[in-house]
Amino acid sequence: MRMPHMAERGPELPMQRDLIDRSNASLKARLALDLESLRGSLQRSGTLLALDTTLEEIMDRVAGFEVVLPSWGLGTGGTRFGRFPGPGEPTSIFEKLEDAALVQQLTRGAGAVSLHVPWDSGASRALSECAQGLGLRFDAMNSNTFQDQPGQRLSYKFGSLSHPESAVRRQAIDHNLEVIAIGEAIGSKALSVWIGDGSDTPGQSNFRRSLERVADSLAEIYKSLPGDWKLFVEYKPYEPAFYSTVIQDWGTALHLCQGLGDRAHVLVDLGHHLPGTNIEQIVSRLIQVGRLGGVHLNDSKYGDDDLTAGSIRPFQLFLIFCELVAAEREARKSRQMSSPTYLIDQSHNTRDPIEALIVTVEEARRAYAKALFVDFERLAELQDASDPVLAELVLKNAFETDVRPVLAAVRLRDGGAIDPIGIFRESGYRLAKARERKPDWKTAGGMV
Amino acid sequence: MRMPHMAERGPELPMQRDLIDRSNASLKARLALDLESLRGSLQRSGTLLALDTTLEEIMDRVAGFEVVLPSWGLGTGGTRFGRFPGPGEPTSIFEKLEDAALVQQLTRGAGAVSLHVPWDSGASRALSECAQGLGLRFDAMNSNTFQDQPGQRLSYKFGSLSHPESAVRRQAIDHNLEVIAIGEAIGSKALSVWIGDGSDTPGQSNFRRSLERVADSLAEIYKSLPGDWKLFVEYKPYEPAFYSTVIQDWGTALHLCQGLGDRAHVLVDLGHHLPGTNIEQIVSRLIQVGRLGGVHLNDSKYGDDDLTAGSIRPFQLFLIFCELVAAEREARKSRQMSSPTYLIDQSHNTRDPIEALIVTVEEARRAYAKALFVDFERLAELQDASDPVLAELVLKNAFETDVRPVLAAVRLRDGGAIDPIGIFRESGYRLAKARERKPDWKTAGGMV
Amino acid sequence: MRMPHMAERGPELPMQRDLIDRSNASLKARLALDLESLRGSLQRSGTLLALDTTLEEIMDRVAGFEVVLPSWGLGTGGTRFGRFPGPGEPTSIFEKLEDAALVQQLTRGAGAVSLHVPWDSGASRALSECAQGLGLRFDAMNSNTFQDQPGQRLSYKFGSLSHPESAVRRQAIDHNLEVIAIGEAIGSKALSVWIGDGSDTPGQSNFRRSLERVADSLAEIYKSLPGDWKLFVEYKPYEPAFYSTVIQDWGTALHLCQGLGDRAHVLVDLGHHLPGTNIEQIVSRLIQVGRLGGVHLNDSKYGDDDLTAGSIRPFQLFLIFCELVAAEREARKSRQMSSPTYLIDQSHNTRDPIEALIVTVEEARRAYAKALFVDFERLAELQDASDPVLAELVLKNAFETDVRPVLAAVRLRDGGAIDPIGIFRESGYRLAKARERKPDWKTAGGMV
Amino acid sequence: MRMPHMAERGPELPMQRDLIDRSNASLKARLALDLESLRGSLQRSGTLLALDTTLEEIMDRVAGFEVVLPSWGLGTGGTRFGRFPGPGEPTSIFEKLEDAALVQQLTRGAGAVSLHVPWDSGASRALSECAQGLGLRFDAMNSNTFQDQPGQRLSYKFGSLSHPESAVRRQAIDHNLEVIAIGEAIGSKALSVWIGDGSDTPGQSNFRRSLERVADSLAEIYKSLPGDWKLFVEYKPYEPAFYSTVIQDWGTALHLCQGLGDRAHVLVDLGHHLPGTNIEQIVSRLIQVGRLGGVHLNDSKYGDDDLTAGSIRPFQLFLIFCELVAAEREARKSRQMSSPTYLIDQSHNTRDPIEALIVTVEEARRAYAKALFVDFERLAELQDASDPVLAELVLKNAFETDVRPVLAAVRLRDGGAIDPIGIFRESGYRLAKARERKPDWKTAGGMV
Repeated sequence: MRMPHMAERGPELPMQRDLIDRSNASLKARLALDLESLRGSLQRSGTLLALDTTLEEIMDRVAGFEVVLPSWGLGTGGTRFGRFPGPGEPTSIFEKLEDAALVQQLTRGAGAVSLHVPWDSGASRALSECAQGLGLRFDAMNSNTFQDQPGQRLSYKFGSLSHPESAVRRQAIDHNLEVIAIGEAIGSKALSVWIGDGSDTPGQSNFRRSLERVADSLAEIYKSLPGDWKLFVEYKPYEPAFYSTVIQDWGTALHLCQGLGDRAHVLVDLGHHLPGTNIEQIVSRLIQVGRLGGVHLNDSKYGDDDLTAGSIRPFQLFLIFCELVAAEREARKSRQMSSPTYLIDQSHNTRDPIEALIVTVEEARRAYAKALFVDFERLAELQDASDPVLAELVLKNAFETDVRPVLAAVRLRDGGAIDPIGIFRESGYRLAKARERKPDWKTAGGMV
Repeated sequence: MRMPHMAERGPELPMQRDLIDRSNASLKARLALDLESLRGSLQRSGTLLALDTTLEEIMDRVAGFEVVLPSWGLGTGGTRFGRFPGPGEPTSIFEKLEDAALVQQLTRGAGAVSLHVPWDSGASRALSECAQGLGLRFDAMNSNTFQDQPGQRLSYKFGSLSHPESAVRRQAIDHNLEVIAIGEAIGSKALSVWIGDGSDTPGQSNFRRSLERVADSLAEIYKSLPGDWKLFVEYKPYEPAFYSTVIQDWGTALHLCQGLGDRAHVLVDLGHHLPGTNIEQIVSRLIQVGRLGGVHLNDSKYGDDDLTAGSIRPFQLFLIFCELVAAEREARKSRQMSSPTYLIDQSHNTRDPIEALIVTVEEARRAYAKALFVDFERLAELQDASDPVLAELVLKNAFETDVRPVLAAVRLRDGGAIDPIGIFRESGYRLAKARERKPDWKTAGGMV
Repeated sequence: MRMPHMAERGPELPMQRDLIDRSNASLKARLALDLESLRGSLQRSGTLLALDTTLEEIMDRVAGFEVVLPSWGLGTGGTRFGRFPGPGEPTSIFEKLEDAALVQQLTRGAGAVSLHVPWDSGASRALSECAQGLGLRFDAMNSNTFQDQPGQRLSYKFGSLSHPESAVRRQAIDHNLEVIAIGEAIGSKALSVWIGDGSDTPGQSNFRRSLERVADSLAEIYKSLPGDWKLFVEYKPYEPAFYSTVIQDWGTALHLCQGLGDRAHVLVDLGHHLPGTNIEQIVSRLIQVGRLGGVHLNDSKYGDDDLTAGSIRPFQLFLIFCELVAAEREARKSRQMSSPTYLIDQSHNTRDPIEALIVTVEEARRAYAKALFVDFERLAELQDASDPVLAELVLKNAFETDVRPVLAAVRLRDGGAIDPIGIFRESGYRLAKARERKPDWKTAGGMV
Repeated sequence: MRMPHMAERGPELPMQRDLIDRSNASLKARLALDLESLRGSLQRSGTLLALDTTLEEIMDRVAGFEVVLPSWGLGTGGTRFGRFPGPGEPTSIFEKLEDAALVQQLTRGAGAVSLHVPWDSGASRALSECAQGLGLRFDAMNSNTFQDQPGQRLSYKFGSLSHPESAVRRQAIDHNLEVIAIGEAIGSKALSVWIGDGSDTPGQSNFRRSLERVADSLAEIYKSLPGDWKLFVEYKPYEPAFYSTVIQDWGTALHLCQGLGDRAHVLVDLGHHLPGTNIEQIVSRLIQVGRLGGVHLNDSKYGDDDLTAGSIRPFQLFLIFCELVAAEREARKSRQMSSPTYLIDQSHNTRDPIEALIVTVEEARRAYAKALFVDFERLAELQDASDPVLAELVLKNAFETDVRPVLAAVRLRDGGAIDPIGIFRESGYRLAKARERKPDWKTAGGMV
């Protein structure tokens, strides 16, 4: 379900076709040689033969792997200590879509955008037309009951879907229903619920009653979910609540989803785990019970640092994709596993958000591409034979494969850029926008 | 279901009655005054009135709270770097029972022992008679498939209940059935299963197939479980496997138990969590879904340090007991919640094991007693009113209550010692045993 | 150097004397009995004799223990996800001083305030007069180069004192010199430097050159430090930078201080440590090398959660105070150790800031008071005898002592309130302020 | 100072030359093509030009990079829960040297062995002759005062170099002097001191006095250090002591070294850090103050897991080597930085130790080789320009380079094996040894 090639599209896209073509032209020959080098290497090692595939098939699968762009990741993020906005940031959802289209134009791996309500407001028809014009789809909708909005009747200071008072819960439920309505109008098929509900001190909230209330509130939302929609329940151990959160881990999220129904799935945000958590195993567990709804991509060294995916622990990212690719393979053989959604959920505090997203598309596809080079059949044999040394080598051989030519060739083939960062800088896009856009810091903020 | 008072029992107990009585006699008057001071204080603050209870009722409940002693905690523990055994350690299960009886005699809060097979071997009849003579019961049985035993046919190096080879799994299942058989002969009513299965490197094992195999193996064991027995499934994030473990967290343990049946429960070891885990919330979750089988008491600062309970994070221990006491209260009002078992599971590396266990009984009862002083009705009101400051004070007022006189008075009343450590040292027990017992280091080792 | 008793002061203090007196009158008798109960208990146990002290001496020492209030802690804090302000928050430094005076009036343990520039702006003379009128002093000054201010010439997005460009470093240095100048005018004697400098991705900054630049910048500041001032260097492992920070731990902070001179000291913020850090040992190390400048009090379960001190790990807080009290004792015997400053550095996200500060003064004094009950001579003997069981009991006996009557009695004696929270609520102070004060959210924000 | 080529050496080496040659012959052609592919790629990207180097120079530097093999890593490791020995383990230091020689023969990157006394005992002359015959050197000596040995007069249960009793400290000091004497006889030039001293409970030991005692003990040892020797001081936050350790972090280790003298250096074990520690920054700090003595290579996900280096966090390993390579580069320009020693310090619990060591030599050289591809001059420019996106790409471009052909070609050139694991398995070495060697489990144990 990829977007039409750039070549087939109109001239309204943010980046001049010319610039991309000229840059590609100058790099094409070198890329072709690099790709042939890789092909030779893979042939000599017997990798392609063992996988019963071709480099072209691999490229097709990489091309089919897309990540969703977060509307809120297109502005500069920040911490509680401050935010350092850059010039030319988008000031409306329409400008965010423009920037998203640029990322997609250059990378060809990010054809959808996820909206956050009420951060992203706009008439549905205008939104749909704008997105369509830019070649973008809308993925899962995100509700927001972790902040108070100007004019909001009741405060979420002490919770939203789990608040002790039913009026506050009702307000939060209604907000989610509204978000679904907006999503329906613009073609989304899923609602992501992440709440900040929890407590800052022992005693502040009752663990059991809070969970019951969240379960009830989610049931209300689920009841109103359109028949072809999914509900994603996200968990997080801490922040903004610093003693306990109501949906603190995958165990609790799974418990809630199982109580809701078949279309409720768990959403795994890579940054929402305690130090040392084996995230790839959690991904595997959720696949196993058929409840993996999506993955929020980012990276971290300490807490929910929201750094760019693959920037700190690229091997872990690869291992996570190994679980996903292995599951896909098995699913293709037997029953259908519906593919989880991959959303970039990062906070770009010191980098240009467009550049950070371009890099992230590359990192996600790199991890995915490397996972495609894993010989899972051989791996299974070695696991059955309790041969950890050779089993590790199977993974390491895939991980050490330099897939940069594959990623660039896929981009080129699909109308994107061999060197997206280079073109972006050369284009002067950001500076041009800095002249056009009038930032209103109140709306430009917001990060998850 | 407490043990008969010491006064009613024969003279075969390890500690001379005389010594205890003499010591108590010299401390009794002071204790009485301390207890009256506390009573006065509690009356003045209105605590007893608010709780609609008396100090005597509190004492009765404390007296009814018992912890189980681990047979393996009666010898000096150790680390992978070494073990520093002390003089007079027990060299057989019978000597361990003798030491356990001493702890019970002095504390009156530890009337049961949990055995670990095959560490603890002995004819069932002899075991039963010995225990009975010492006034001890046998609590949950522990199987051991995380070590290879001399003469064992197949190795658990690469797993036991989850091993890729069915023959190894069968051997591990059979071992568990054997442990049940021993347990039946000596009056136990539960089997605790903790396995070390996992992997040390990415690729070594398959997350999904490993879990399926464990589920199948546990189902085999569960099928053979006597009708009045429970099966406890313990989880642990790491160690001895350092990349992944098969039953890594409560989510996985719960999933397994739900697949097994109503008599399968999760066992929470306080040390088996990643840094920062809100353990009291996990305890609450398991109570909520009716699957909390037991709690393994210990404390830790870093990993599964197996320090004595309450020695590092006494406030956390108190919060855990608050969940348990709150649940008990509600259970008494409505349906019956069967009380979880509380086992001390520690590694006494640099302390005399008997002294460490005496201290731990005190710490566990201290946390429990303080939790009894929590005004849960008032707390619920404050939670509903989103008043975190006063809610915290409800907990802190209970936690700051100096319950030492209560604990000592309960011991005295039940025939134990006001100053158990003092008496133990005065008695010269350890030195006497050092002369009697002939350590065989091979059997004296072992720790969990 | 405590403040004069309230009784000696004029009527301009925020809380009506009457209200306090009436409340105290109704609670006095009960307090006296509780205090006598405690005294009796301490006499019976021989504690006072062993410590060669009296309850009155203990009370004097507790009375002499003061914490500094942070100006920024008087407004509601927040997280990167939002802030939930409460009614009646202070909108200027003068209103913050008013609230601080209220905390001091009720607790008598918080006679000083620490300012943060440029958050706190006002004419020095007006500030001094206001503080004096309210019976407050100014403690260490805090500079701020972790945020950009409106109209600021150069951005701190990529660092301040360690920025690659000398012009930015100069601007940051000059800001610090300005803060010193303000501090001199209002009677402060120390500058606290905490910088957010660091990096979000590997490669972004050079570890060695960044440290050299910070060392140079600090040397510039140190050169201009008035002769009777101290410089406090604060460390933090992460946040707002999420891959590396320039002054990441006590080792680096100490290295910097040693390079600066005798008046440079390390500042330990309890929340600025990685999971599992033994903070009391770091405090001990810094005392040992004579470089402990101060302690920022707060508590945390995960990261720099900035929860109220003692709310999560009260035993750890007690252990930290044990190091400080032990060092004080030794210092009194030999050379003079200058007492570190104790600042409350918290983020009150879901509590009323005034209530949170009142509770924190209580918690800090509680930990301090309990540490005064430790028999350090006995402890030293047991440590020399390698007797961990009895050594722990020495600490636990102090920790289990219910010192609430001591704290309340000290407050009463010094003109404060037996029940500060009760009086605060009864007074309707917050509501009155909500009518008076006109919040300007830009200045009311800010948290560290 | 590399060893002579295998070709120049006698026939007494553990692996038949023939087997290696035959295997190499069959793989040579493919390797040559892979190497040329890489060369082409590097030329096209301008990498070699930018670095002003050739692939041959890179290969020379890789060839010059050696890791030291730990004698204790040649037997199967274990945890406190058990050990699963494999067949054919070495039963004496001479057999360990034989296995080490095999690793060196196949990898040509591990020409030295580090001994642990008293685990490794043998007449010095015999040891020297054996090592020489096998083409091995002896690197740093390791003392052991964290275990009690049979027949030892005083126990280290409560400490060694920091023990409260001077007689125990003296015994521990004397042991270290003995280790130096052995080392001198066999040509070592450094002593590594790692102690397990610490405490399991608050109160057990005095932080300050313990540190003073360790400082005094180390000074005694340092006084006797031969003039051309170095002393390495290792730190560790926990295990085997679980509340505090005396040398808990680099700050304390540095403090000790600075007190000792110029030949005292800090030893960084990658596993000896709290969760989230930025280890590469610590390495940088120690380089900056001229006190990095060595690095103990291993990997971990949770604690001191002692997994094989690069198996969990290969990117972190690369970043650590970036610091080392950058420092080397600068040192070559100005003054001489003496190269730190790189020791493999792992516990091979579920892998064949020889295979694990072979893999580790590969991983270490891989990280080193990739670091050689970092364009540090370009990186410095980007750091000065605050350009984190391109700075990261400089690192990622090096990290993504597939250096497997370089590593294999270096091995081939120096007489080693293109496919060391393959040859090892084909050779039947382990089985042959299983027939020869008679394991005595008491001596075969031991792991750090």
